[in-house]
Amino acid sequence: MGKRLVIALGGNALGSTPKEQLELVKKTASTIADLVEEGYDVVVGHGNGPQVGMVNLAFDTSEQQGMTPAMPFTECVAITQSYIGYHLQQALQNELRERNIPKDVATIVTQIEVDENDSAFQDPTKPIGSYYSNEEAQEIARKTGYTFKEFPKGYRRIVASPIPLAIVELEAVRKLVAQDTIVITVGGGGIPVIKKDGRYEGIAAVIDKDRACTRLALDVGADMLIILTNVEKVSLNYGTEKQIDLDELTLEEAENYMKEGQFGTGSMLPKVEACMEFVKKTGGRTLITSLEKAKDALQGRTGTIIRA
Amino acid sequence: MGKRLVIALGGNALGSTPKEQLELVKKTASTIADLVEEGYDVVVGHGNGPQVGMVNLAFDTSEQQGMTPAMPFTECVAITQSYIGYHLQQALQNELRERNIPKDVATIVTQIEVDENDSAFQDPTKPIGSYYSNEEAQEIARKTGYTFKEFPKGYRRIVASPIPLAIVELEAVRKLVAQDTIVITVGGGGIPVIKKDGRYEGIAAVIDKDRACTRLALDVGADMLIILTNVEKVSLNYGTEKQIDLDELTLEEAENYMKEGQFGTGSMLPKVEACMEFVKKTGGRTLITSLEKAKDALQGRTGTIIRA
Repeated sequence: MGKRLVIALGGNALGSTPKEQLELVKKTASTIADLVEEGYDVVVGHGNGPQVGMVNLAFDTSEQQGMTPAMPFTECVAITQSYIGYHLQQALQNELRERNIPKDVATIVTQIEVDENDSAFQDPTKPIGSYYSNEEAQEIARKTGYTFKEFPKGYRRIVASPIPLAIVELEAVRKLVAQDTIVITVGGGGIPVIKKDGRYEGIAAVIDKDRACTRLALDVGADMLIILTNVEKVSLNYGTEKQIDLDELTLEEAENYMKEGQFGTGSMLPKVEACMEFVKKTGGRTLITSLEKAKDALQGRTGTIIRA
Repeated sequence: MGKRLVIALGGNALGSTPKEQLELVKKTASTIADLVEEGYDVVVGHGNGPQVGMVNLAFDTSEQQGMTPAMPFTECVAITQSYIGYHLQQALQNELRERNIPKDVATIVTQIEVDENDSAFQDPTKPIGSYYSNEEAQEIARKTGYTFKEFPKGYRRIVASPIPLAIVELEAVRKLVAQDTIVITVGGGGIPVIKKDGRYEGIAAVIDKDRACTRLALDVGADMLIILTNVEKVSLNYGTEKQIDLDELTLEEAENYMKEGQFGTGSMLPKVEACMEFVKKTGGRTLITSLEKAKDALQGRTGTIIRA
């Protein structure tokens, strides 16, 4: 058996229309197939930022037109799992068949348990859905209890980004992974649920997909966590003349650079943090690189390794 | 190990809003848990008629308002799989936990291969999506090549209902079923795909969910196919003063009653046909009854058995 990898794919790399996505998943599938061909066991997690935004907006618009009922945000997250999972698994099946690799691929609809008392719920930060005027936002807030925040282009609903505690469908994922199946799971960071009187129940929140993939990597005993993003390497002084691309980062270095504010809050920081969490808990290695460079990076030719 | 059942749930029994569905799945989960408690291994398929209509209408409306891109019908089918699967698996997990039954539950995003040359594509019959005026329908048909048909309330797009040939994710389903997991699959009859130059590709069609469940029952080696619908038994002269409820139907009897036109085209006929197919291929038994009576029927107290 090969080494086991958990790959975290960015939702941004999947495009913002069904047509775009259907094209872009081919590139993703080709990269994943490369890694499978090299003998790695692969488990795939992915984001859903643009996609859940689109789904949410479509249902909001249709509801405002009186056409269909309101679709709660938690269900919108669920919806993106099969919308993305369908395209991704199909592209991967096609790619593997062309290379005569007899591996099964399946997407599992995946809930992730979060804590109702997670401090994130006291301080929601994640904007979702459409922009509203102040009056509209106040009206919706009055009716629903939603929290809104002002942004340059208007008011948007904000939800919490709690810590993923447990993957509800973990045993199913494990069973398939153990039997040579490429599983697509924790889509969009997973469908956030809380446990109330012993019963799971959806809650409007966004689980960071990199954190969810760390949870996944720990739970399936991955040898390595790979976060694929839009840059080849993690950098210091990113976007300035003094930019320095990093080949490797120890936990201590990562910690220090974080304190210096080197990593962007909504972009590189959560990725570095997700990697650090995996390294701390396993002593294992993690890799941040771009989709295009994943194969090269795994062969040690590029990317940024974060290690103990 | 207990006997293996494939249960086909009607999409109509799941309600037409997220709120309704969240309530109704509890009843469904309770029935399924009853059967699990009796020692049966259960695999669940389900319809998506009202749900795919809602999803399609929401995206159509949002596109017409210029808010989000068009969502192809095949992707709408995919979307209903996680929308329904999420609620259903959660309700079932909750129900099983309350009864201290340590079974895993997972929804698999499932494609089903159909034949591009299936004669159904020459004669589409399944209405989907919104109503349009004659002019609108002609305009859309000109732009997209869609087929429209006139109904009492206006024009609607119609798509083919081809025969399900092969469940693409079958091996993943089998692996989980073999390992004591309740799998929710072939939602809405499965996402219809054709094979083109060896590659899967989505196609706008609706696979009859009862036919898909027969395929599933054959492929997972089910001992019995159970179709749950809104009546307790199959009847002759349905809805008339001479209605006769049937306890049992042999293949021969079923054939004869079909010729008499006893079973409604869009309602009981496909269910009886799906059962007959399973009986013909396996010599096994099938059962048609209501969700409420499923447990009683499996104990032989009601429902209609179709057998060799």
